[in-house]
Amino acid sequence: MLRVAICGGSGYAGAELLRILAAHPKVKITVATSEKSAGKRVTDLFPYLHRYENLVYEPLDREKIISRADLFFMALPHAASQVAVDFFVSQGKKVIDLSADYRLREPRIYEEWYKVPHMFPGTLKKAVYGLPELHRKKIAKASLVANPGCYPTGAIIGLTPAIKNGLIKLNSIVIDSKSGASGAGRQSEVSFSYCEVNEGFKAYSVASHRHTPEIEQELSAVAGKGVRVNFTPHLVPMDRGILTTVYAQLAKSMEGKGIHEIYRTAYGKEPFTRVLEMGKFPNVKNVRGTNLCELGVAVNKRTGTLIVIAAIDNLVKGASGQAVHNMNIMMGFDEKEALNAIALFP
Amino acid sequence: MLRVAICGGSGYAGAELLRILAAHPKVKITVATSEKSAGKRVTDLFPYLHRYENLVYEPLDREKIISRADLFFMALPHAASQVAVDFFVSQGKKVIDLSADYRLREPRIYEEWYKVPHMFPGTLKKAVYGLPELHRKKIAKASLVANPGCYPTGAIIGLTPAIKNGLIKLNSIVIDSKSGASGAGRQSEVSFSYCEVNEGFKAYSVASHRHTPEIEQELSAVAGKGVRVNFTPHLVPMDRGILTTVYAQLAKSMEGKGIHEIYRTAYGKEPFTRVLEMGKFPNVKNVRGTNLCELGVAVNKRTGTLIVIAAIDNLVKGASGQAVHNMNIMMGFDEKEALNAIALFP
Amino acid sequence: MLRVAICGGSGYAGAELLRILAAHPKVKITVATSEKSAGKRVTDLFPYLHRYENLVYEPLDREKIISRADLFFMALPHAASQVAVDFFVSQGKKVIDLSADYRLREPRIYEEWYKVPHMFPGTLKKAVYGLPELHRKKIAKASLVANPGCYPTGAIIGLTPAIKNGLIKLNSIVIDSKSGASGAGRQSEVSFSYCEVNEGFKAYSVASHRHTPEIEQELSAVAGKGVRVNFTPHLVPMDRGILTTVYAQLAKSMEGKGIHEIYRTAYGKEPFTRVLEMGKFPNVKNVRGTNLCELGVAVNKRTGTLIVIAAIDNLVKGASGQAVHNMNIMMGFDEKEALNAIALFP
Amino acid sequence: MLRVAICGGSGYAGAELLRILAAHPKVKITVATSEKSAGKRVTDLFPYLHRYENLVYEPLDREKIISRADLFFMALPHAASQVAVDFFVSQGKKVIDLSADYRLREPRIYEEWYKVPHMFPGTLKKAVYGLPELHRKKIAKASLVANPGCYPTGAIIGLTPAIKNGLIKLNSIVIDSKSGASGAGRQSEVSFSYCEVNEGFKAYSVASHRHTPEIEQELSAVAGKGVRVNFTPHLVPMDRGILTTVYAQLAKSMEGKGIHEIYRTAYGKEPFTRVLEMGKFPNVKNVRGTNLCELGVAVNKRTGTLIVIAAIDNLVKGASGQAVHNMNIMMGFDEKEALNAIALFP
Repeated sequence: MLRVAICGGSGYAGAELLRILAAHPKVKITVATSEKSAGKRVTDLFPYLHRYENLVYEPLDREKIISRADLFFMALPHAASQVAVDFFVSQGKKVIDLSADYRLREPRIYEEWYKVPHMFPGTLKKAVYGLPELHRKKIAKASLVANPGCYPTGAIIGLTPAIKNGLIKLNSIVIDSKSGASGAGRQSEVSFSYCEVNEGFKAYSVASHRHTPEIEQELSAVAGKGVRVNFTPHLVPMDRGILTTVYAQLAKSMEGKGIHEIYRTAYGKEPFTRVLEMGKFPNVKNVRGTNLCELGVAVNKRTGTLIVIAAIDNLVKGASGQAVHNMNIMMGFDEKEALNAIALFP
Repeated sequence: MLRVAICGGSGYAGAELLRILAAHPKVKITVATSEKSAGKRVTDLFPYLHRYENLVYEPLDREKIISRADLFFMALPHAASQVAVDFFVSQGKKVIDLSADYRLREPRIYEEWYKVPHMFPGTLKKAVYGLPELHRKKIAKASLVANPGCYPTGAIIGLTPAIKNGLIKLNSIVIDSKSGASGAGRQSEVSFSYCEVNEGFKAYSVASHRHTPEIEQELSAVAGKGVRVNFTPHLVPMDRGILTTVYAQLAKSMEGKGIHEIYRTAYGKEPFTRVLEMGKFPNVKNVRGTNLCELGVAVNKRTGTLIVIAAIDNLVKGASGQAVHNMNIMMGFDEKEALNAIALFP
Repeated sequence: MLRVAICGGSGYAGAELLRILAAHPKVKITVATSEKSAGKRVTDLFPYLHRYENLVYEPLDREKIISRADLFFMALPHAASQVAVDFFVSQGKKVIDLSADYRLREPRIYEEWYKVPHMFPGTLKKAVYGLPELHRKKIAKASLVANPGCYPTGAIIGLTPAIKNGLIKLNSIVIDSKSGASGAGRQSEVSFSYCEVNEGFKAYSVASHRHTPEIEQELSAVAGKGVRVNFTPHLVPMDRGILTTVYAQLAKSMEGKGIHEIYRTAYGKEPFTRVLEMGKFPNVKNVRGTNLCELGVAVNKRTGTLIVIAAIDNLVKGASGQAVHNMNIMMGFDEKEALNAIALFP
Repeated sequence: MLRVAICGGSGYAGAELLRILAAHPKVKITVATSEKSAGKRVTDLFPYLHRYENLVYEPLDREKIISRADLFFMALPHAASQVAVDFFVSQGKKVIDLSADYRLREPRIYEEWYKVPHMFPGTLKKAVYGLPELHRKKIAKASLVANPGCYPTGAIIGLTPAIKNGLIKLNSIVIDSKSGASGAGRQSEVSFSYCEVNEGFKAYSVASHRHTPEIEQELSAVAGKGVRVNFTPHLVPMDRGILTTVYAQLAKSMEGKGIHEIYRTAYGKEPFTRVLEMGKFPNVKNVRGTNLCELGVAVNKRTGTLIVIAAIDNLVKGASGQAVHNMNIMMGFDEKEALNAIALFP
């Protein structure tokens, strides 16, 4: 049995790791940490996790917990993750970091967007960006995987085949994303209270969201040159799900059918990315509770524009499910282990 | 008292006209028609409209009702409106048509998108597109006003100052819209049942929605040349509201502040269009139940892109409220009469 | 113009007073207080209240504000209201208190349920319980009106005719209430965040909610003897509305029709309480944004039980609307002034 | 492998059987029927069920399908189920009927409430009411199990220990239930459209719901004499879940603690019924997607009333999950097989 620690287990990503891993036959949770809820039972915060009735949050005492786990999921807030990740990696442990701290390869860009310096550029170099659709082989050998952000996951999967195949003008990319409220985490701010979110719809972090450089880094790597994107997130009155609508001008005239085939080929063997039939488009409700990314592809012939629509569950494929997928790859487990759920519909 | 008929009064637009006009001191509803609900009381369908307890739906018998009203609101389905509108107009009545039948000036384009011929090109020529922000003077003199579609309202208001002032590249426009479920009307299709819409989010009519030519017609008129746009509508799990996020590449480098001032100037005197302070963006919840269009304006300097975000209540500014606004203009009433409500929040 | 102060104006009840009073032709808001938001504009918290763009919250400095208003709406938290109410009343001002501080006539019962002593039993004696359906005449002469709680409003209106006419066994009353989330106020607790409330349904304060003694006090007065009730509130994933389902065993066999007539007679002249037709039952959606209480009445003949169902908007009839109604009565205004809205549906 | 047919597979109960059984290692779906959708793929109606991409609905041709399955889940509308169930049972097949047709032991009562005669009283006698908490042993030997209705499941589980132990007055029972919209099935009626359900809350079938006699039958059997109940269902704006609040006057004075222990003892060994700690009450969100029934127990000492609150997922414990549980018992499988999911939260 792989002994697993969840550091920062009192948020939704941590709770979702507990939910998913309960179905994993080769994993045992040995540690769950939380500073704020130290001493409380997991079930005090999340009564539905009664399967873990004996699991109690403890403070993240690195020295104390390191020997009790073989793999560490880090679900700490951004910036808080840096030190602990470095420590566990330096001691030879496997680490999957769900924070943004090890996603951006350039410390300079990290500092520009997150307003804190990166203290461990050496460890940062070892980190692999944990999007299996792009980096499966590197993930398999990695000791440190930086789990992608929720928005970048759909955006990067949605754009990669188009960029790799030179289908679009790189300076014309618009990424319009819409997320359920759980993307903001377990919230105590008035602006995330039920009455403020329900029956509302708004954009936020317009032209300034921190997932922008992450998307650009990965797309630039695919393109082989710098790519800049327009990225706008919106808040949807629902619990889970991100729908991302991507627009880009075609580099040359192409039929939707040809592009659809390119996408089908690109993801044909992926266990969790599905390209829907031509003319079909995804709905986040169809992937709720699953690790799937569903894609719809279309061409607007009147304007010469490629439209790709991607749907994920932000807490699964956009966070904890993808983290477990990465674990499965790192450990040589069946990739679908514990990730086989059918969407909960309706 | 102006005697008003509501033809097609059993849908949400018709019911919303009744709600709004109940507060209008110069108007009296004398007729409400519905084929399917003829003989039923308005309150059988809409118990909350008990103020109209004696109003009974009748079939739309043109000859029979023409003498009982001075102004006709037409809230019939598309195509069904053509004949009745022509009849009332030809008999010298004022008509405000909430269907799409008289919005598109070119019969050829109407036929291309709506798949039915236009039988009254002569009457069509008399129609004024009822967006007061653009056509107030013509509306004041019109006998027939074609009330704008819900999506075009926000999109056109959001783009007009940018196009009029030559700020953007006309071939780069992306209009990403998100609407509450009432935009689909009073629905008996499974796909609009509670369980299918709730906790879901999807795009629909991708690259093919009928509001596209309406947006293009008005923006082309502003530009003085043909404009084509990418327009994608999405369905949001909420009752009311449309948020439209518009992207267009800047024609030349400009600061957000300068563009913001252009927008403020453009709409400074409008009673129902508000340009929010720099850095603020609208939320549909803040305009719910009102005739307002709220705009947020930003520039993404990294990509040289203008972003405009528009919020309306699709049943008010996007339909019945705008229709009443048009009536107020046509009749010389105070423009804000009956349209003075504050948003219902939360 | 009546000069009105709103003390504790930064919660939903305060904001709702601002929304409603904007339509009142005889009232002018001169003061809005908030300790936490002192110095902020009303529109910083509630952008949709832009009609009050110049209104700034100030601390509740009794001496400073007393001369600037003729009537004070107190929307402070429970216990915080006692002193200020006493002060304004002692200085001859009209006061409508939306807190619980002056609702319970017995200081002993207040202390038992609210765990604080009542410091002003003399002023308490002057307070009139502001349910116009029961106490209109006293309200008209009152200087201090204690505005009813949201749950008691529907429960008391729903039970009064049955008790007054001796229809039910007083020891058999069950009051099962369901409220939208705004009943908890403008919340920053995780348990009221969107993700915790949405798609959930639960009871709370089982057998211990503080509105219980308020209901019992009023029903006991109607009965002429002590009445105890079972009252259970539940949280519904919606913004506004309370539906209360009341059960009581019939004292003698009676037909639903006879009881329905008794209810119709009891409330026939009330401007805001409507007894629906036999066989019809209320939906909170039909009263949203209105000051209405809608009642459905039925008899279960198989069990000999009276069932009364009451629907209100908790922020209007359950709080600020009823407060304005009380003001209208106190000041001799038309009772319906500013309270004439039709429900916002859908 | 047990070969399983799902008759009436195009509703939510049928789809939920497919979802749950996909995780069952000993079951294979061989037939799915639907009259209306015959010829369509399961994925045409339910895209999220892509694991069944080759499963096509066929008409329910009894002769044709009987040899292709060993056990038949019947998810047909009430009345439609009678003939087919009788046929499959008479041919020696195992049948689990999710309709109401074989739940009521007395044909007379069935006819009174469902307004159709029962044509197979002989087969009806063989039917076992499939509530494992009450009838596990009979279910294990049954060839025909009548799967309980969604509302009766929580109500009966919630009341049985109290009645069995003589704790309550049998003529004082009030059952106030609140259900998510999926309880009405896959709906094409306006009254179940998103805009009519969302932000609404109402009672329906007041004093007349068809689940009443089912509840009374089972409680009477527990009591050993006739029991009549007040049962009122309400519609909650959420997808899944039923919360049932039960009230009954105590037969003698008792502490909550003693009653709590009786409930803990009664259900201590049940795999799917959980009695929460004293002072804790259930939330439907904590059982979403699971086969659990969670109970909270309290005593209102002021009124001498027992309050029991039960939460289930209406599509799982209230329908398809309980059906699979019954199958597991009938076939001697592990009771928890395929029913081991943790709630999807948030």
